Amino acid sequence: MIRIAIAGYGNLGRGVESAVSKCEDMELVALFTRRAPETVKPVTEVPVYSMDKACEMADKIDVMILCGGSAKDLPEQTPAMAKYFNVVDSFDTHAKIPEHFASVDAVCKENGTVGIISIGWDPGLFSLNRMLGQAILPCGNDYTFWGKGVSQGHSDAIRRIAGVKDARQYTIPVPEALESVRNGENPELTTRQKHTRECFVVAEEGADLKAIEEQIVTMPNYFADYDTTVHFISEEELMRDHKGIPHGGMVFRTGTTGFNNENKHVIEFKLTLDSNPEFTSSVLVAYARAAYRLAKEGNSGCKTIFDIAPAYIHPASPEELRKNLL
Amino acid sequence: MIRIAIAGYGNLGRGVESAVSKCEDMELVALFTRRAPETVKPVTEVPVYSMDKACEMADKIDVMILCGGSAKDLPEQTPAMAKYFNVVDSFDTHAKIPEHFASVDAVCKENGTVGIISIGWDPGLFSLNRMLGQAILPCGNDYTFWGKGVSQGHSDAIRRIAGVKDARQYTIPVPEALESVRNGENPELTTRQKHTRECFVVAEEGADLKAIEEQIVTMPNYFADYDTTVHFISEEELMRDHKGIPHGGMVFRTGTTGFNNENKHVIEFKLTLDSNPEFTSSVLVAYARAAYRLAKEGNSGCKTIFDIAPAYIHPASPEELRKNLL
Repeated sequence: MIRIAIAGYGNLGRGVESAVSKCEDMELVALFTRRAPETVKPVTEVPVYSMDKACEMADKIDVMILCGGSAKDLPEQTPAMAKYFNVVDSFDTHAKIPEHFASVDAVCKENGTVGIISIGWDPGLFSLNRMLGQAILPCGNDYTFWGKGVSQGHSDAIRRIAGVKDARQYTIPVPEALESVRNGENPELTTRQKHTRECFVVAEEGADLKAIEEQIVTMPNYFADYDTTVHFISEEELMRDHKGIPHGGMVFRTGTTGFNNENKHVIEFKLTLDSNPEFTSSVLVAYARAAYRLAKEGNSGCKTIFDIAPAYIHPASPEELRKNLL
Repeated sequence: MIRIAIAGYGNLGRGVESAVSKCEDMELVALFTRRAPETVKPVTEVPVYSMDKACEMADKIDVMILCGGSAKDLPEQTPAMAKYFNVVDSFDTHAKIPEHFASVDAVCKENGTVGIISIGWDPGLFSLNRMLGQAILPCGNDYTFWGKGVSQGHSDAIRRIAGVKDARQYTIPVPEALESVRNGENPELTTRQKHTRECFVVAEEGADLKAIEEQIVTMPNYFADYDTTVHFISEEELMRDHKGIPHGGMVFRTGTTGFNNENKHVIEFKLTLDSNPEFTSSVLVAYARAAYRLAKEGNSGCKTIFDIAPAYIHPASPEELRKNLL
């Protein structure tokens, strides 16, 4: 059995707890939190410890799955934990990945551990498909669409506006853009042509709705470059109709082959997810299996989804995989 | 530059010739044939040699890409060539993959070469997606659909019927089945419910069309388990409208997460290919890059798409991949 521990118990941590319970070759042995351990109530029987006790349990845990945020938690926690454990995280600040990689790599190499970073679907499975597509069809174009799904960052941006009590923002791919890409037309698409944004907003009583709407649709970076729709709804409607955290999207590679580029090809990878954090957790858990196996073989250092032979994430043996899935 | 050679110059060999011409880190240095070399006219300037001269050129070639058929050529040619070269093939007789793997693995290990087998899209990219889907969503179902596309085997089966001059068979996924899978309904589908078959047949003058149609739709294994449509057309129409070799299909993994399996997820990988052999060739060439790099690092033995870290197939460095694609 692979002994898994979780560091951080929010949506992602709960997702990992659930995903590990579905893997016959894994057991969840500890949950670490920065809150007072007795205030954390996991769904399963797993013991809860204070985060600073983790280093005392190095010999009881095979892989630590880090479930904190990319902005503040992971840049510190992943290298700190990699001193004692094989680690997996979902670090998703794309621009800072090289820096995070270097810091985790140094600690892993010094301590003989394996660190797998930026695992999930984007970065993660979407990155993998962008890479495979480019390698297979060197003459072509990449397209990534996100949604329909809830963007936490955009929802938070709306919540910070004065007079807003709560909000939920959906990112939605533009159907005509998808159609054109699927037809292999290789369109050049502006930001506005790729996605629209739809906002469901609960306003404080007596708030100026026109002013809130204006502030949303003109907000730089977040909304100004998109066609944005704003709906004001009641708190009850928000709770009833917008409680879930669905997401997904598509990665396309469209390209040509033949001496005169006469043949067109479209590769599409599509995710339709009821729960963004639970799906991300499921990918983290599969790559925890890889971290365990790679470390057992004597590897150390930081890896990404690009560096790991796919067989490492499936519980079956290479022989079974060749026989049943190839 | 990675020095590539081709063994066998049919549709696949021509596809490899074209695909190599689009890779800046590769050059095509030789083409081997079992025909009289002077009768083979490649599109590019590559020299043509008799197949039995290959063993004399071991130090001039980095990777030999085998472009013969799975039924008779590859079971002999891949191990024979692996004695002298790193090799890549598209062996696609699913039931015989373990046997082929063992025979290539033994030769590769004895001679310090790398052999990558069963590369293409099925087996190949479809296998990879079946495997990733199972590993990430252990509670779920797999679905593979093929088409719309030309099945060479089914077209050949029709051509063997007395009175048939030429034929082209298309495999077509049933739209209702696709819809149900995409909706995450986890349907149980019979062979008939998944695909239909459409045949375009050129009959000899005076042939009994009713008898030909009857023989097609009742043919065991090939057509009896499917809803099959037969169209009789002229030779001109066949040449005009059915000259291409399109194919493609989809791999789905549909599954649930959450302690009560309350959240549904759908992973879809879809290919829409104008030219089946040219796309397969493009995958072969990308994995030839992996064979070269693995051998350079001192690896030997047989590998499949499951065993190769994805970064090996992309021309960019790991640093560039992390920076630009993760």
